Amino acid sequence: MTGKRSFVMAVAQMGAVNLDDSRASVVARLVEMLKEGKNRGAQFVVFPELALTTFFPRYWMGDAEAQARFFEQTLPSTETSPLFDTARDLGVGFYLGYAELTPEGTPYNSAVIVRPDGSIAGKYRKIHLPGHSDHKPEAPFQHLEKKYFEVGDLGFRVHNVPLGDTEVRMGMCLCNDRRWPETYRVMALQSAEVVVLGYNTPSLNIHWNEPVHLRTTTHLISLQANAYQNGLWVAAAAKCGSEDGHHMIGSSVIVAPTGEIVARAVSEEDEVITANVDLSLGEMFREHVFNFAKHRRPEHYKLITERTGAGAPVK
Amino acid sequence: MTGKRSFVMAVAQMGAVNLDDSRASVVARLVEMLKEGKNRGAQFVVFPELALTTFFPRYWMGDAEAQARFFEQTLPSTETSPLFDTARDLGVGFYLGYAELTPEGTPYNSAVIVRPDGSIAGKYRKIHLPGHSDHKPEAPFQHLEKKYFEVGDLGFRVHNVPLGDTEVRMGMCLCNDRRWPETYRVMALQSAEVVVLGYNTPSLNIHWNEPVHLRTTTHLISLQANAYQNGLWVAAAAKCGSEDGHHMIGSSVIVAPTGEIVARAVSEEDEVITANVDLSLGEMFREHVFNFAKHRRPEHYKLITERTGAGAPVK
Repeated sequence: MTGKRSFVMAVAQMGAVNLDDSRASVVARLVEMLKEGKNRGAQFVVFPELALTTFFPRYWMGDAEAQARFFEQTLPSTETSPLFDTARDLGVGFYLGYAELTPEGTPYNSAVIVRPDGSIAGKYRKIHLPGHSDHKPEAPFQHLEKKYFEVGDLGFRVHNVPLGDTEVRMGMCLCNDRRWPETYRVMALQSAEVVVLGYNTPSLNIHWNEPVHLRTTTHLISLQANAYQNGLWVAAAAKCGSEDGHHMIGSSVIVAPTGEIVARAVSEEDEVITANVDLSLGEMFREHVFNFAKHRRPEHYKLITERTGAGAPVK
Repeated sequence: MTGKRSFVMAVAQMGAVNLDDSRASVVARLVEMLKEGKNRGAQFVVFPELALTTFFPRYWMGDAEAQARFFEQTLPSTETSPLFDTARDLGVGFYLGYAELTPEGTPYNSAVIVRPDGSIAGKYRKIHLPGHSDHKPEAPFQHLEKKYFEVGDLGFRVHNVPLGDTEVRMGMCLCNDRRWPETYRVMALQSAEVVVLGYNTPSLNIHWNEPVHLRTTTHLISLQANAYQNGLWVAAAAKCGSEDGHHMIGSSVIVAPTGEIVARAVSEEDEVITANVDLSLGEMFREHVFNFAKHRRPEHYKLITERTGAGAPVK
């Protein structure tokens, strides 16, 4: 397949990370899955959102306590360097979600794309923070992303990531971002070919009695339609299963630009899935049905940037 | 269910309309399905795109010939008034797609929403025209929407449609518009609760060897994800089956704000499907996960209106 622009992608789904699991034990699991991905031919591995700890926004605590227990001040650090070292040794790139505390003390829900040589190609700070910032003692658990994190300030950027002979235009996002079509569109308008993301999605909605099965249905259709409508590949890694009794959905997937799921995790545990990512497939969509230059009509899209919330009909 | 904001929606899928079918015979089929919808409790019926004729953009001809054979200069006209009269008599509203020639001679691919009293609530002119404007004699058929129609000049508007005790905020689009997330987002930002649309989708892609099954897959996931991501109902009516040997997909559906298909046509012929449309279901999504005012970040969406085609990554 000389000359064909393609690479093998792995998604490394993680089972539960409990409150008392050490960073070292978590990093050891990530390293193990990185090696499994390499053994199955992967050149890039996608890990979940907030992969290094339990999904702590479900707990109410002071910001200082949260930052001391759950945030990273440097990446790589002593605890996370085995992952970076193994990736460089194996020549495998990866995406990792983590809680970032900047030198200035600003907290973000962040992710990085790391090249196969171990260097960081780009960073993303989560823009669509879900949940709330107030304490809801009556709820079965909290969803305090709006308390613990600031809204990301880096936008949705696209990075060139060299994977073997192929330089891949890769964007990234995190969890709730995947349900917002603007996320993918902004990256597609920068010619992204692949979007990678991690997520922690509680099986219960604390705001209304949403049927539990919808959590998986809506996760999948959001990834499928947005992959298709932008002519790009999407790879999404869950942290899932029961973290100290709090259940989160699995169903990590790799989705083709056809909108089809081409690989899907079947467990709610650590599990590696892979697919061959043929970048020319996306080109067929971007050249024809979704040839943006030919078919888009931004003069009719103005409300998307002029309004934040929903308002009255335009006369 | 006093006080509950809901209504019964019907989608009236149409089988083939061949070149030699008369307008009168087509209107009689529409009237028949309107009556069936009424008998099944429907207060609103969605008909297809270009419902009154065969899907003529598949044929190369002069603009004057096309306009004389396939366009409407008034609506209702002598030929279409039985539909409007029956709707008023039964107290059923409807959506109808047709080829519009304005008094100034401008051709559009248009649709109207008609109130149960027979008056026109609003008009839409198709914005995302697919296909090409040049003759492709080597292709098995043409897709000349860019030749026969001008780009719509009315935007994506939302109309109040009284259905029984309920005033429904309804938007509309046509066919290829349903694959573009901007379509739904612009209407959701005007508080649309329901989007109705018709389509003619050839089973074969004349631009590349797209697997035939994808035509249906991508149709469905586009409707499902955009219904969900905007917390609204979507009702989509096909003209389908084999028109003079040219096959088009069926799978007319009604989709709930959960992203789930709640009614689906099983044939490729004239077929009515119905569903109870509970408008409060959409509210749950628009108040929580898709509370636009709380969660959207237009400062990071600027490329959507600043760029038409895809370009280089933003530094």
